[in-house]
Amino acid sequence: MSITGHTQVYFIIGDPVSQVRAPEVYNALFARHGIDAVLVPMRVAAGDLQGWVRHALKAQNVGGLWATIPHKPALVGLVDRIDPLARVAGAVNAVRRCADGSTDGALFDGIGFVKGLDQAGITITGQRALMLGAGGGGQAVAAALLSRGIGELAIHNRSRARAEALVTQLRAEARSTGSASVIRVADDTDPAGYGLVVNCTSQGLKPDDPMPTDPARIDAGAAVVDIIMSREPTPLLRACAERGIAAHAGFEMLVQQVPEYLRFFGHEALAQTLQHDLAEVRALLRPR
Amino acid sequence: MSITGHTQVYFIIGDPVSQVRAPEVYNALFARHGIDAVLVPMRVAAGDLQGWVRHALKAQNVGGLWATIPHKPALVGLVDRIDPLARVAGAVNAVRRCADGSTDGALFDGIGFVKGLDQAGITITGQRALMLGAGGGGQAVAAALLSRGIGELAIHNRSRARAEALVTQLRAEARSTGSASVIRVADDTDPAGYGLVVNCTSQGLKPDDPMPTDPARIDAGAAVVDIIMSREPTPLLRACAERGIAAHAGFEMLVQQVPEYLRFFGHEALAQTLQHDLAEVRALLRPR
Repeated sequence: MSITGHTQVYFIIGDPVSQVRAPEVYNALFARHGIDAVLVPMRVAAGDLQGWVRHALKAQNVGGLWATIPHKPALVGLVDRIDPLARVAGAVNAVRRCADGSTDGALFDGIGFVKGLDQAGITITGQRALMLGAGGGGQAVAAALLSRGIGELAIHNRSRARAEALVTQLRAEARSTGSASVIRVADDTDPAGYGLVVNCTSQGLKPDDPMPTDPARIDAGAAVVDIIMSREPTPLLRACAERGIAAHAGFEMLVQQVPEYLRFFGHEALAQTLQHDLAEVRALLRPR
Repeated sequence: MSITGHTQVYFIIGDPVSQVRAPEVYNALFARHGIDAVLVPMRVAAGDLQGWVRHALKAQNVGGLWATIPHKPALVGLVDRIDPLARVAGAVNAVRRCADGSTDGALFDGIGFVKGLDQAGITITGQRALMLGAGGGGQAVAAALLSRGIGELAIHNRSRARAEALVTQLRAEARSTGSASVIRVADDTDPAGYGLVVNCTSQGLKPDDPMPTDPARIDAGAAVVDIIMSREPTPLLRACAERGIAAHAGFEMLVQQVPEYLRFFGHEALAQTLQHDLAEVRALLRPR
């Protein structure tokens, strides 16, 4: 990588920001594929976010930003335009600076998730899905499943009010887009009868966490996805594998997002190259 | 260079910014000397400067910024504290973000100039100097010469009002610091009788420019410095060399600034290493 006065600059903002992997991943891709751009971390406190986004993005050689915790929800109100998935999920993880200085916000977590399902050959349209957890990850996943014509989406959350709020939001979106998807709160975590079970809680991150659902009750033909990002398969994924149930880690969701981000930021040729062979992206993203 | 979430970020702001060399120079120094920092260009329009500086520097892993045309004068009013040379010259070319989020402004053009004189063995204290040009470069040079006890400083500028304004500013500084330096407007560009002649005009940048002063009238024992940054020696420097007069290009001013910037931004060990052997800096800064 060689930074000059001509180099386009991207930011990844978070607080903290030291844990982010994006600079290593994207700077390697930019350098290897001849794109004169650089991604640098910015530790922006929540209280500084509004002013920072409004003013830092005025620099004319800034391409935009990636966003991580805790800024994704607040960015919804700080961009000039927002894509439907970001609006429905109530979160933005990418902001693009347009030539006129205005900004577009988008959310790629859910797109990565459904592309990961496609990659694994899991049907979404018409499927009955149980989603465990209605936090940030769940909201992105639910918005993406709805956009892809999920048949039924049952949402469970430890605090029921949060599941209800997400259901209300998704139903409004379904109405406005003429979607026939059935969206409802799940009263319990029982996975029986669902063709797709998705863990969007943090249960499984720590070794002694209880299971987010009872793996013994999962249908034999179901597909299970655990979006927890961890080096090892989670207890849920291990239990499914033992029963011979198709079980997928969240890692692919990260992989599948990469070409989408690059396309959003105008690097269409690189996005297409990577989409054809994601091995380079997987190698860069692999947990250290 | 490997940028991670832990990397400290510096900016160089200007408009335009594509011509700057600082990213190449400082990123090479950071990488070679094991400093986890990166310098990226930011094209900030003059109208966006105030908001950009106030908000972009709030990011907690930002170390500060380098500034180039047209932002140096405006930055004087946008920093929390300012060093005396920047105050006297009315320009800031470096802003440091302190741990509490406040900012220090400084100006290194003049320091680079006087260190270049030291390097060349040219006496400043008590010297009689003629300075041609009272623009940005001249203001920085004049403030630095005053801080080093110049004996007499005569300033000529095509528009006399500008020379008068600078003289007024320098005299106020001299009074407040108890300096005995004589500071005055030079009525013409005649170099006779001065031990130091400094060209701070842009005359000599283009091949058919008139000479900023008559080289035939320069005292045989005088030292001449032309701060114009150009690949080739200027006509003034060539004419001096033909007469056997010690003549120095502006390049060394750039070289000598580098350790000062690094010290200001907290990289004292690297500043000391480079100060002991500036060959690495000269090689990095050499015009392409």
